[in-house]
Amino acid sequence: MSKKTPLADQTPTGFPLTSGWRGDVTDLDPRATPGFRGKKADGKELLRLRSRALDDLQERLYAAHHGRSGGRSVLLIVQGMDTAGKGGIMRHVVGNVDPQGVDITAFKAPTPAEKRHDFLWRIRKHAPAPGMIGVFDRSQYEDVLIHRVHGWADAAEIRERYTAINAFERELAEAGTTVVKVMLHISRQEQGGRLMERLERPDKHWKFDPTDVDEREHWDDYMEAYTRALRATSTVGAPWTVVPADRKWYARIAVQQLLLDALEGIDPQWPAADYDVQEQIGRLRATMD
Amino acid sequence: MSKKTPLADQTPTGFPLTSGWRGDVTDLDPRATPGFRGKKADGKELLRLRSRALDDLQERLYAAHHGRSGGRSVLLIVQGMDTAGKGGIMRHVVGNVDPQGVDITAFKAPTPAEKRHDFLWRIRKHAPAPGMIGVFDRSQYEDVLIHRVHGWADAAEIRERYTAINAFERELAEAGTTVVKVMLHISRQEQGGRLMERLERPDKHWKFDPTDVDEREHWDDYMEAYTRALRATSTVGAPWTVVPADRKWYARIAVQQLLLDALEGIDPQWPAADYDVQEQIGRLRATMD
Repeated sequence: MSKKTPLADQTPTGFPLTSGWRGDVTDLDPRATPGFRGKKADGKELLRLRSRALDDLQERLYAAHHGRSGGRSVLLIVQGMDTAGKGGIMRHVVGNVDPQGVDITAFKAPTPAEKRHDFLWRIRKHAPAPGMIGVFDRSQYEDVLIHRVHGWADAAEIRERYTAINAFERELAEAGTTVVKVMLHISRQEQGGRLMERLERPDKHWKFDPTDVDEREHWDDYMEAYTRALRATSTVGAPWTVVPADRKWYARIAVQQLLLDALEGIDPQWPAADYDVQEQIGRLRATMD
Repeated sequence: MSKKTPLADQTPTGFPLTSGWRGDVTDLDPRATPGFRGKKADGKELLRLRSRALDDLQERLYAAHHGRSGGRSVLLIVQGMDTAGKGGIMRHVVGNVDPQGVDITAFKAPTPAEKRHDFLWRIRKHAPAPGMIGVFDRSQYEDVLIHRVHGWADAAEIRERYTAINAFERELAEAGTTVVKVMLHISRQEQGGRLMERLERPDKHWKFDPTDVDEREHWDDYMEAYTRALRATSTVGAPWTVVPADRKWYARIAVQQLLLDALEGIDPQWPAADYDVQEQIGRLRATMD
């Protein structure tokens, strides 16, 4: 832990991508800890320290909307290869705020009914309500990632989907939703170790699927698909952040920081009472024996 | 803290009602701590101690269902007067388990669209999926509580609703759902203090509604409605527990205990691998450099 920067002053940022980014995800180090000088224990401590601030901001966001029809919201989109740590983000970052203010949707392979609609149809239904933090565990991006890798959609179709996604996210922004997009970036080597752990521990067997091994054959294709998707959809209003995820503790504090930044950007305030407080105190007192 | 019973051996039970119960909720003390000999600090410590067990059981419940079409689930129904502490249960008990395994629904006054249907129509849609812990913050019971107090349904209609509710909960049980029903039981005096706190703190003003004071006029009618509803719907398969809630810390450990009991009753097991583990270890190894 660096003596120059106290823990509480550090801001793990991941690798934020700007609009017009033309880089390659494979040039970003999955073991890096951008914005943070510290070790695992420091990271765990920071997560704990900041969870109170996150909790407070979430409650303000919820309260600011109370009794109103509109209001601001946050949508956290989490993408990543198998074992990248999406579940850990849900549990250890999102799980630290009041569950009443959070709406998590895990998008699995679409059902036959869902497939009969446009790919955004099932996504739109889970856009967060005012006052809420919505979280997508996988998302509309599956339709430009796995679909590209396996050739389920051709290049022209994928480009149309980028356009549709950007338009959709612009709509969300116009409706008051701050969209936070995270790629949890792990190395192929780290994934191998994590899959092996699932095989070695009987209480983790249920998390393993033999097709996980097959998908490793397509690793480079996935990285290429991520690079292209992140280039095409890092917009001014909804940029991506590539979060190095080989160190789980770092990924968690970085995503927590992104949520804090989003909420601080909204700066939700406790709403003023729409009744006369003194009058109500008097009325209430009259009911107390 | 009694020296005879170590903290970890204590089981806060609330007041469990049996089928055929003919008591009166007003005879149950909202400040009692049945099954627990200890003070606030002990209660907070027990909540912390047991949250790991709850977390573990929830993960097993989720895992046991994984990849299967059926499976067990739990539904926690929480009822109580305004300020009884429903939100605190969501935050401090339910909030301690992985949010991916929990599905909370807060039932507000029904919308015009919902009112065009049978009162159970909107409820049924939120029955927990296999592997999940569903939580209702208010529920179908509003239709036999506030509806009775304000005369929005006559006595015959209320009786029909009891029958419909019992049939619905029997269906849930047959589908593998353990139904846990909790009345958070506070005193009118305690409610007065909690409402006053909402009026005295600007960050709580949004939680107060002037009609909360009006409703206090109907306190005795509400207790009567609860008594009748709990008598009519404490069934063998889905009994009620009246949880004294004047002490928030007690209500939380009691509800946590009820969830633990429900999950231990299900006794979910890690599912066996449906693939050859050694074969997959070999395949995975072949992909690792």
